[in-house]
Amino acid sequence: MAKMVVIYKHPPDPEAFEKHYFRVHIPLAKKLPGLRRYEVSQGPVVSRRGEAGAYLIGTLHFDDMVALESAFASPEGEACRLDVANYARPEDVQMFLFDDRPA
Amino acid sequence: MAKMVVIYKHPPDPEAFEKHYFRVHIPLAKKLPGLRRYEVSQGPVVSRRGEAGAYLIGTLHFDDMVALESAFASPEGEACRLDVANYARPEDVQMFLFDDRPA
Repeated sequence: MAKMVVIYKHPPDPEAFEKHYFRVHIPLAKKLPGLRRYEVSQGPVVSRRGEAGAYLIGTLHFDDMVALESAFASPEGEACRLDVANYARPEDVQMFLFDDRPA
Repeated sequence: MAKMVVIYKHPPDPEAFEKHYFRVHIPLAKKLPGLRRYEVSQGPVVSRRGEAGAYLIGTLHFDDMVALESAFASPEGEACRLDVANYARPEDVQMFLFDDRPA
């Protein structure tokens, strides 16, 4: 499977962030061709030393990197990309795309 | 499900990192009580703008946050925690523990 893990830092206005993320961004992302699963963190994100510096983590699953890259090259992917600026500052978003396998 | 996502930056000595991570750390982590699944990235980790600044990502799955916290409070969890210093500098490791649900 290939994953896209998106880590959002604490937003200046959590209410506005959540409203946009849950009402607009998730419905947009669910239209991505080839999306197999979409998970979102609930409750606090912590580290083993306490505060992890993250507010919310979204994980999108695709069959493989080809499917993931096709999804984001599609018009739906472009719509998702453009939408991020509507609720998060670029410096508050970390994004990791990778293929993975059982350890 | 609850997840622990561990993101490693590019190590100074990738060969030594991989040797320790795959031969020592993974076998230790697989002993964690309650571990349901352990995935590791294969190949490059990228962002949508190119380089993501990450070398390897491990994802450990547990039933819930209680199970995850119990695992890391166990002797096996302590062994894992201590082992990280054997292959990665603290500033090269990001760790996120969270509960998640379908979006």
